[in-house]
Formats: sequence, structure tokens, C-alpha cells
Amino acid sequence: MHILIIGAAGMVGRKLTQRLVRDGGLGGKPIDKATLHDIVQPSAPEGAPFATTTVASDFSLPGEAAKLVAGRPDIIFHLAAIVSGEAEQDFEKGYRINLDGAWKLFEAIRAVGDGYKPRVVFTSSIAVFGAPFPAAIGDEFFTTPLTSYGTQKAVGELLLSDYTRKGFFDGVGIRLPTICVRPGAPNKAASGFFSNIIREPLAGHEAVLPVPEDVRHWHASPRSAVGFLVHAATMDTSRIGPRRALTMPGLSATVGEQIEALRRVGGDKVVARIRREPDTTIMKIVEGWPRNFDARRATELGFVAETTFDEIIRVHLEDELGGKIA
Amino acid sequence: MHILIIGAAGMVGRKLTQRLVRDGGLGGKPIDKATLHDIVQPSAPEGAPFATTTVASDFSLPGEAAKLVAGRPDIIFHLAAIVSGEAEQDFEKGYRINLDGAWKLFEAIRAVGDGYKPRVVFTSSIAVFGAPFPAAIGDEFFTTPLTSYGTQKAVGELLLSDYTRKGFFDGVGIRLPTICVRPGAPNKAASGFFSNIIREPLAGHEAVLPVPEDVRHWHASPRSAVGFLVHAATMDTSRIGPRRALTMPGLSATVGEQIEALRRVGGDKVVARIRREPDTTIMKIVEGWPRNFDARRATELGFVAETTFDEIIRVHLEDELGGKIA
Repeated sequence: MHILIIGAAGMVGRKLTQRLVRDGGLGGKPIDKATLHDIVQPSAPEGAPFATTTVASDFSLPGEAAKLVAGRPDIIFHLAAIVSGEAEQDFEKGYRINLDGAWKLFEAIRAVGDGYKPRVVFTSSIAVFGAPFPAAIGDEFFTTPLTSYGTQKAVGELLLSDYTRKGFFDGVGIRLPTICVRPGAPNKAASGFFSNIIREPLAGHEAVLPVPEDVRHWHASPRSAVGFLVHAATMDTSRIGPRRALTMPGLSATVGEQIEALRRVGGDKVVARIRREPDTTIMKIVEGWPRNFDARRATELGFVAETTFDEIIRVHLEDELGGKIA
Repeated sequence: MHILIIGAAGMVGRKLTQRLVRDGGLGGKPIDKATLHDIVQPSAPEGAPFATTTVASDFSLPGEAAKLVAGRPDIIFHLAAIVSGEAEQDFEKGYRINLDGAWKLFEAIRAVGDGYKPRVVFTSSIAVFGAPFPAAIGDEFFTTPLTSYGTQKAVGELLLSDYTRKGFFDGVGIRLPTICVRPGAPNKAASGFFSNIIREPLAGHEAVLPVPEDVRHWHASPRSAVGFLVHAATMDTSRIGPRRALTMPGLSATVGEQIEALRRVGGDKVVARIRREPDTTIMKIVEGWPRNFDARRATELGFVAETTFDEIIRVHLEDELGGKIA
């Protein structure tokens, strides 16, 4: 089996690659070959039990997507995107990569023809939804995004369903929750604090909390995100029906609940490393974000996420810190 | 004021042009100039109290949309589309005109810059919705189209809202009901019979009814469609908010109710010209169509449609038959 990962150099792409290397296969079938693609050269994984090729290119440029699918990969993970903040600042770049890039990829797959029909896993986002929201956003809530990024993802979902309906590929769109705890250096994204207040204190560093403790948000661990991708790549898609975009399960937690979970896992000493520094700009941005979902369809289709924030913290301890708290 | 109509040679485009010629203005402001565009040369209206220019071009080709907006029209009506059946058969053509064409138009407006911010009225369709449906489709029902045409229109709606949010133009998307009674020759479209069974008997001809009388559908007259366009072009858009696509009001009626209205207006003699000839193919297609809406938002925003089918028939009699029944 041949796997193509577009956007393989990002955090989720690297973790997905690690998982495939560890498993050596997908859905019980061995992987023969993986093509890892990104705008910058992804690093080749060590110890892979299959052949790996790394490719750097701008897949939104004419002809580039065709090159990526010419080898007829069986499964295509499309993770590449201009993130929300940048897509909002650079209107043209966001539309070029997130909308036109995705469309060009779908068109390149269609152009192969000759019975080629890969599984396409498209990463979407809860940014396809725009306030005002119900208490919990159900599977039939409408997509009225309030950002260009959310608009571009919502368009990708529509194309994914139509190209799937026409039989050009077998698409599954997964709307990821906010990934928490995000590894790496503190992130300046408006959502960064959700991870910062867990990751930094556990590592012995101070973290800034810019919002009140009653702010509620929707989380899943990086490990769950990879699990969603693997399940989307291997599941029986005949059970999905024509509505191919699925809100992934996650955990709705307030910042206060995050902090209490951190206290249970790391103790008062760790929690004391959180410094409150209210930031009205961030508060205002966060007010427009979804807080809670009822992701029934995805749950019934076998997607699984954490059910407590303690669990999310323990995943971070295991996967990033070798179990050690500073 | 300068008006641009893209898709001016179609039935709705011609009726909109007639209305503008009759009124001489829009929203209390005189029209100085109208540019009438279509893929075929639209006919110039007679007796217009303003200058008219007719243009034939494929607006989806590079540079063509830029030419259309170079004159900085104040109001742009975008009515051009590949219809549902053709978009389903010719995948590439549908996407080229309905999606890429609309996007190129929006991009051409954005490229003018320099404070240019026209009102853009985008005609969408109830085809953005896909079965299964609730008893009445509300304003917050999600858009999960089951045709390429519906997908392309749903994408257009998303782009319209985002370009409006970013201040590149002031967009209003209107989802038209099925237009009934459609004037002209009997139409081979699957929906044609809804109009045929009224228009043909009133004109003294036989019409074929391919479905049972309990089939329910959503209608508005051509006159109402033009009324929607004019209201969308002139209304106070600050009342709409960021969700710019609006389901237009209409009338939900069964075929049996259509026929009883025809009997009240035209008598038994006219109704006797309807011949029942069940067609399982058409029955199956019609099963997937929306039957009823709760178009509360548009109604509150001042859009008005017929409230009885008798009224829809009387509009046809007045506007197409000079009041005479054959």
C-alpha cells in the first residue's frame, strides 16, 4: 500500500508519520511506500519498515498536485494548510493554498482516471462554524464561518462530498478540535494558552493565562488527532453516507477544569507556575469560538477521543515528557 | 447609477431588465446606465430611460470578469449559471461557470480596489440543501447538497459571505424557489411539469403530469423572483448580519392544490387538459427535492412572495396572457 501525506512536516503530519512507522501498516495491510510532502522538505523517519520519499513543493502551483498523485497512492492524507491567523492576514495566500490548492489536488486525482479511486482524508476544522452557537453544536449545525480559513475549509468539505458522490475518490473530512497539549515552544496563536498553561508548568516554566477560568473550549490530544486520521483512512465509508464531513469527538472543558486536572496530575507546585495576565484582545477573540459539540455521528462511526482532561495531560506526559514532571 | 446584469438573456434576466426599464430606477435612485451581459448577446430593451450596453462573453475566461467590472457598476446582479441537469452531466463546465466563474467575478471586484464596493446580488438555489429534510427547512438548516449544481451554489454563498465580511463588496445571496409558472415552451427539465400543467392548459394545450397529486414543492412566480432581486439590490444590508445567504419566501403546494387553484381560475374545461402519465424516473428525482421551507429571516427582511397558488396563476395570466384564458 502506498501512502501520501501532504503537509507531512507539520506537528500532526510528523506524529502521523511516526505512528505509521511504528505500526508498519494501515487497517491490517502493510505499507510498502510512503511519500511525505510539504512546502519544506519533511525529515525522513528513522527505522521505517517501508520505503519513504520526501518531497518539497508548493502543491497549489499548476502541475504539482498531478506529480504527487501520479504514483497512484492508495491513501492520501491532506493536512497542508495556511493556519487561521495567517489566512486572515494574507487573504490571497489563504485562498490559494486552502481553497485552490485543495481543489487542484481533487482535480489531479480526478484527472488520473482509469479506475483510480483513492481514500482521501481531508483535515477540516471547527472553524467552519460561526457564532452565535447553540449550547452544544450538533452534527446538523450549519456552516457559516466567520474567518477566511473557516470559509476555505467549508468549501473543501463541499468539494470533498461532491467529488466523492461522483466517484472520483472516497473522501472523509474530519473537523479537528483544538489540539491540546500542543508540543513545542509556546505558540503566539490566540489559542496558544490552552496548551501553554499545561505544557510549560509541567516542564518547570511559567505560563501566562490571558482569559478567565470560565472560558470553555473543545480539545483533543495530538495522539487522538492521529487516531482520527488513521480511522478515517481505514474505516468502512459505506456507513458514512453522502455527508462526508464529520465533527470529531473531543472534550469540552473550562480553563478552570484544565487547571484542576493539572493539579491532580502535577500538584500545587506545578499549578503555581500559571500567571494570570488578562488580555482583553484574546478574551474577545475567544468569545467567538465554539465551546462544546455533540459529535454523535463520528462517535457512532468509531472515532474516539479523551473523555477527561486528566487523560489529555497524561497523553502529553507519556508522549512528550517520558512521564517526568519538572 | 450603473447596473450590471450577468446572465441577462435568461428568463429571469429579461424580466429583471423589463422591470428596471419600467421603473427607470432602483431604490428611489435613477439608473443612468445598464450593462446587459450573457454568453449570447442579450437583446437591448426597448424604451429604456437610461443608456444600455449589451455584451456577449464567457465571463469565466481569464480577464473577462475584469472587463465587466472595469466600469465600476454600483449594483451587480449575478444570474448566470449552468443549470442543474447540465451541471450534473458536464462536471467540468458546471464547475467552470458556477464555481470558478463566480469566484473570478468576486476576485475581479476585489482587484478594482480604490474603495470600490458594489452591491452584489448572487442568485443561489434551494439545491444547496440535500435530503433527508425536516418537514419545513428552516434558516439554520445545513447545506449538504446532493448535486454538483447545489455544491457550486453553496460554495458561491460561502465566498459571498467571506468577501462581504472582508469589505470587498456588499453581497446578498438569494436562494430562489422553483419559478412557477415559467413562461415559454414546455421544458424538458425534471421540474418542468410544475409549470407545464398550468401554462399549457391555460393556453388551450394538453399537458402531461408525470407524478401523483400528493407531490409537494416550493414555488414563487417570475414576478416575485424579480421582486426578490430588486429588494436584495436596494435593502439595508446592515440588517442581514454576516450570514449573507437567504432562503427566499415561497409557497408550498401539492400538485393537487395546484390543480384545484387552476380549476378555480380557469374552470373544469382547463383542468381537463391535464393528462396523467406516470413517469417513475421523474417521480424518483422529485422525491429528493425540498418540499417546504420556513423562510422567516427573508420575510422579516422584507422579501415577499405569493401566499396562494391562485395568486401565482393570476400573475401568469396578467404578465404573459393579457388576462385571457383559452
